[in-house]
Amino acid sequence: MISKLITAIKKTEAPIVAGLDPMLSYVPSYILKKAFDEHGETLEGAAEAIWVFNKGLIDATSDLIPAVKPQIAMYEQFGIPGLSAYKKTVDYARSKGLVVIGDIKRGDIGSTSGAYATGHLGRVQVGSRSYAPFDADMVTVNPYMGSDAVNPFIKVCNEYDKGLFILVKTSNPSSGELQDRLVDGRPVYELVADMVNKWGETCQDSSPEACGYTNVGAVVGATYPEMGKRLRELMPKAFILVPGYGAQGGKGKDLTGFFDADGLGAIVNSSRGIIAAWKKDEYASFGEAGYADAARAAVLDMREDIRSALN
Amino acid sequence: MISKLITAIKKTEAPIVAGLDPMLSYVPSYILKKAFDEHGETLEGAAEAIWVFNKGLIDATSDLIPAVKPQIAMYEQFGIPGLSAYKKTVDYARSKGLVVIGDIKRGDIGSTSGAYATGHLGRVQVGSRSYAPFDADMVTVNPYMGSDAVNPFIKVCNEYDKGLFILVKTSNPSSGELQDRLVDGRPVYELVADMVNKWGETCQDSSPEACGYTNVGAVVGATYPEMGKRLRELMPKAFILVPGYGAQGGKGKDLTGFFDADGLGAIVNSSRGIIAAWKKDEYASFGEAGYADAARAAVLDMREDIRSALN
Repeated sequence: MISKLITAIKKTEAPIVAGLDPMLSYVPSYILKKAFDEHGETLEGAAEAIWVFNKGLIDATSDLIPAVKPQIAMYEQFGIPGLSAYKKTVDYARSKGLVVIGDIKRGDIGSTSGAYATGHLGRVQVGSRSYAPFDADMVTVNPYMGSDAVNPFIKVCNEYDKGLFILVKTSNPSSGELQDRLVDGRPVYELVADMVNKWGETCQDSSPEACGYTNVGAVVGATYPEMGKRLRELMPKAFILVPGYGAQGGKGKDLTGFFDADGLGAIVNSSRGIIAAWKKDEYASFGEAGYADAARAAVLDMREDIRSALN
Repeated sequence: MISKLITAIKKTEAPIVAGLDPMLSYVPSYILKKAFDEHGETLEGAAEAIWVFNKGLIDATSDLIPAVKPQIAMYEQFGIPGLSAYKKTVDYARSKGLVVIGDIKRGDIGSTSGAYATGHLGRVQVGSRSYAPFDADMVTVNPYMGSDAVNPFIKVCNEYDKGLFILVKTSNPSSGELQDRLVDGRPVYELVADMVNKWGETCQDSSPEACGYTNVGAVVGATYPEMGKRLRELMPKAFILVPGYGAQGGKGKDLTGFFDADGLGAIVNSSRGIIAAWKKDEYASFGEAGYADAARAAVLDMREDIRSALN
């Protein structure tokens, strides 16, 4: 799977993933009105608005970017209809050739992690038939419970050629409360980095296009550039998913340390900065009806920011 | 909320929560057949089978136990229809007076954790109306991302009188890979215990029936009784949810340390041991058609095991 992502990054020359984390406040009023006219002010109405909003964003950006990352919480908050919108978004993005990273941050013991892996990446058996319930390409996983929580995901990745990003050092201000604490002089996030290396050995992508990277990547926040540089060195075979660009404060020049010598090895996420670009002064001229074009312009600007930092 | 759980535990004299973690292999064949006859071997058929199975279990045990804990992964693996079965299970269990602990182990940064909290415990705004999408009473939360991940849950708990159980020391064999590592001579799970205490101060239940416990509890596995005893002392105001009884190896006599001097302070989960009791030699005489009565018998035996250990 990682070879597929790397090939798409090379083709677009954009190590960028658009975070499809819709809030109703990001959705233009004409889309909301139409959805509420059809479905009322219901969970179904909210889900329809989000789906239409996402479809516009995907149509406007899918030629520029290799991947999207829908944050499932933003759909789950609208219950079953919201999760149906998540699924439609995953399916549509994949049909447009995008790699879909389901930002689910799941993790549980043995058979329970297995159920999550089955539901989000694999196929579930029902009698004599099987189904791929959510069918993302890659998902994020929480490592707090250790190998028991991660190995069932690896098993499914190996079976269906999928990939993972393990939370190592997250972008939020309080991530250090646990992740930065020192164990034998080393921060907890470095211990998790060691685990990522170990897990990666059991979850390889044998294609030459993988450039030596495994199907087990890591999440490291753009907001911690020094740690990103250190973790890039510590995990030479783990692709890094970098949240925290833009709205959370990270900038292109902070990100060079996350990449390898060939300018590969990382993919940078921006959510609000892309999908709600039309609400920012910078892109206000696009207007509500131009929200998708505003997102496209924001992707182009982000691509330029990262390219100049890497050159 | 914790006062509601404690009142129900006192009334039933059973600090027991039934883990509603259905696998299709636990469901009697006549229930499966009927569901597949109606819906085919589809995700809808699987979800219907699980729901009918759960309803039977709830009907047979709701007078004996204070709470149920559906593990959402087991529903999520069947996609949207599976999550609909989760929601029906939560709603039905609450209608029977049970406290419902949604075992979701979510956790993410700020607004994203807020979306999970809204979806699972709170109400989401859609235009001028609001909805409670999943509406459990309490949920489990992963602490790896720190206070940013937990505070949005606490906000929703305070608004809607709900409760949390934070993962402190999980029951699985590999939980020690991170949780047991020493920081300044103390294991990581003790640092999380300190955080649970701090979070609990901001999430109180003022009812006298709360017996001093807050709405922020902790998950500590039955498989680690010595650590359970230590954590009981370290977190005097945190109710402990104890998984790992039965199938994972924990026994009543291992559990006394998780309780306080009054025999309160903990609730023990059993999943397979209750819901798949009919498949064990011990309860085989109930037969397939008696699966719910077998579950009832297993609850009575578990209650006796824990009562004798506590006396």
